Amino acid sequence: MPDAISRATTAGTALFTDMYELTMLEAALADGSGDRPCVFELFARRLPAGRRYGVVAGTGRLLDALEGFRFGDAELELVSRFLKPSTVEWLRDFRFSGDIDGYREGDFYFPGSPILSVSGTFTECVLLETLALSIFNHDSAVASAAARMVGAAAGRTLIEMGSRRTHEEAAVAAARAAYLAGFDSTSNLEAARRYGIPAAGTAAHAFTLLHTTTEGRDEASAFRSQVESLGVDTTLLVDTYDITEGVNTAIAVAGPELGGVRIDSGDLGVLARQVRAQLDSLGATRTKIVMSGDLDEYGIAGLRAEPVDAYGVGTSLVTGSGAPTAGMVYKLVEVDGIPVEKRSAAKESRGGAKRAVRYARRTGTLVEEVVYPAHFEQVPAGEGTQVHHLMVPLVRSGDPVDDLPTLEESREFLREGLVRLPWEGLTLSAGDPAIPTRFVREE
Amino acid sequence: MPDAISRATTAGTALFTDMYELTMLEAALADGSGDRPCVFELFARRLPAGRRYGVVAGTGRLLDALEGFRFGDAELELVSRFLKPSTVEWLRDFRFSGDIDGYREGDFYFPGSPILSVSGTFTECVLLETLALSIFNHDSAVASAAARMVGAAAGRTLIEMGSRRTHEEAAVAAARAAYLAGFDSTSNLEAARRYGIPAAGTAAHAFTLLHTTTEGRDEASAFRSQVESLGVDTTLLVDTYDITEGVNTAIAVAGPELGGVRIDSGDLGVLARQVRAQLDSLGATRTKIVMSGDLDEYGIAGLRAEPVDAYGVGTSLVTGSGAPTAGMVYKLVEVDGIPVEKRSAAKESRGGAKRAVRYARRTGTLVEEVVYPAHFEQVPAGEGTQVHHLMVPLVRSGDPVDDLPTLEESREFLREGLVRLPWEGLTLSAGDPAIPTRFVREE
Repeated sequence: MPDAISRATTAGTALFTDMYELTMLEAALADGSGDRPCVFELFARRLPAGRRYGVVAGTGRLLDALEGFRFGDAELELVSRFLKPSTVEWLRDFRFSGDIDGYREGDFYFPGSPILSVSGTFTECVLLETLALSIFNHDSAVASAAARMVGAAAGRTLIEMGSRRTHEEAAVAAARAAYLAGFDSTSNLEAARRYGIPAAGTAAHAFTLLHTTTEGRDEASAFRSQVESLGVDTTLLVDTYDITEGVNTAIAVAGPELGGVRIDSGDLGVLARQVRAQLDSLGATRTKIVMSGDLDEYGIAGLRAEPVDAYGVGTSLVTGSGAPTAGMVYKLVEVDGIPVEKRSAAKESRGGAKRAVRYARRTGTLVEEVVYPAHFEQVPAGEGTQVHHLMVPLVRSGDPVDDLPTLEESREFLREGLVRLPWEGLTLSAGDPAIPTRFVREE
Repeated sequence: MPDAISRATTAGTALFTDMYELTMLEAALADGSGDRPCVFELFARRLPAGRRYGVVAGTGRLLDALEGFRFGDAELELVSRFLKPSTVEWLRDFRFSGDIDGYREGDFYFPGSPILSVSGTFTECVLLETLALSIFNHDSAVASAAARMVGAAAGRTLIEMGSRRTHEEAAVAAARAAYLAGFDSTSNLEAARRYGIPAAGTAAHAFTLLHTTTEGRDEASAFRSQVESLGVDTTLLVDTYDITEGVNTAIAVAGPELGGVRIDSGDLGVLARQVRAQLDSLGATRTKIVMSGDLDEYGIAGLRAEPVDAYGVGTSLVTGSGAPTAGMVYKLVEVDGIPVEKRSAAKESRGGAKRAVRYARRTGTLVEEVVYPAHFEQVPAGEGTQVHHLMVPLVRSGDPVDDLPTLEESREFLREGLVRLPWEGLTLSAGDPAIPTRFVREE
């Protein structure tokens, strides 16, 4: 999709940045410290309350955004309002030329997991802070919530339809994160265009209401029009007026081969059983039931015993189901090979560049994550017989490495990963992280 | 800012749309109902739990986005995958040519307030649904939370610094919404460029850590560099190591004319008093104290008695402080002059195009909002001696009307509006909407 790439990268991304990154850069250029080799790490201090795991999402978007992180005339005009001319000139030639290693997109993360490790001069690394955090905090929040919904749906179809509940560009990224996490499709057309995600949709109540005449409501006319236009395989929205009547009308109009009916309100569990029985009695035994209406992972789980075929999820998906931001931070951990860390109360960070592995049993079940100093020549011993290296090269000398996984491959990576979580990590109930993380310090 | 306008409008916005808007459009074109004159309304069924009022935000962004709502080659290629050629050709010429009336940006809204009223053919109105909701649901959620923070700050400076906690484009819109609601500045450079919002920033812990040498930490060197680069008026971040030591070092380096110190962690109330006393004892009586670190409206209110000069607010601002989306919906209310409404359980909507006024006492204090059928020739009587008409023309025949308020004017409109809310509407505690809304139905 050449189109997709151009839309994603031609708009400059350099001003998605907090002002202080640039004033720090100016001061560091002036005092000579700007060229010191540094390592910054991006990580979450904790998971949202009660969550068992997080899902890394945003890597692909960050690499796209990195390409557009240049200071053209529009950007330079803005920064020249508060920076010295020499700094502005320095920015004109700016291009990130460092290295980035990180967890694979679609992998899990736990408290303290070094999701990204960014190496280069201070100036080039500090500039990426705001943008990298924006992308990972948003996308990982959505993917982490989405993965729980996918688990709760237990194989049933999930349609992402939350675009209208979040910022229009965030909606596109949310659709991508949901798909990464295992959703089947999205209602968002820009996400379909930009990322090739399957698009899906049914109809709104407005379409039924549109067919009102001076004689009154006319649901049959709306259904007939939809079936004529979209075929008998379409999904009819049956809850504009009375659901039982709506289902009767739907089958009367479309016949028992109707693709599906959608119910968007009411006591969804009761309605699912009633409507299934009604459809079956009308001979529409293969007509699917799509449920929507303020569903979250708990609502989905609550319908597990009911005859629901697909869920449409909106608000709770795009708002991270109670955790709209992943709480990730981007911290300087090493300068010129010297580990550095903040010492303020309650916000301690761990100095030094790090690497991470996960140990698993012979069966594949994960046992623990081990985070250790990057300079160690040997991976610390751990519990388990298999060891998975978690950090892979993403960027070398400013360029994305070859053969980065596609969105589909990352989606498959997560799908396979979920099989390896201990079972209690997959429960929706609040609790500790699915596996512990052990931090090995300098010896 | 011609630059700003080009960035905001050149990217097409037509695909920030749910697929079903287009399949409904196709079916309505085919059955002839697509040209029926319709009125859609955008409103919130309720406020977030316990909130006393909402702030309308997004109007300016919607009008910008409307200009870019066209189907060019990239958009048409995508929709041609699921629409008939005749529909694709119809979209090639599409331009919204209807009318939009609505509440002023920066006005309050309450449950059921008809914030936008969109009139035109079904096809042109239905297409705007997703984008209009995305913009209003996001921007109003942020502005509504921000207004409470502004109230809690009681005149002290508020800096928006939440960009890193939300999607990178949502961050720009959030900065705009916060400024609308009364925040003084933003850390976000793109918001400064696009909307002319004052930019502000201090420094990060990374800058202090950067100055670590093989001899150990060197906070003084970092402070010296910042003061040399940004002047003595800068704000130094004093909590990287020990705060008392940090403040001593700050004044030793910068002298008692130092602009400010920032504290980002710890028991902010206690620290504010300690640091104020310390600064005063060092002669830095005019050095300001900036507090940040997971502040929300309650945290800000809790510091009201402390000697804090400015607050930096991030996460809670961009996530709407517990209500990350405003829950607004976009409903067809009238077709060919016939009021229509959905009858499903718990989601009833009120049919018919509406207008709204607010009644106020002679003192200016608001008493009630009255929503009534648009065709009424007289405004229904209400409690109070003043009547404010809430809906103004925004778009006529597809074009924004002249002399729409600037962001600064909308900001001032809200500032003046807050003076007129009953006092209990301004409390942070949970409760009913600040004023009741009365719905007058057909006589």
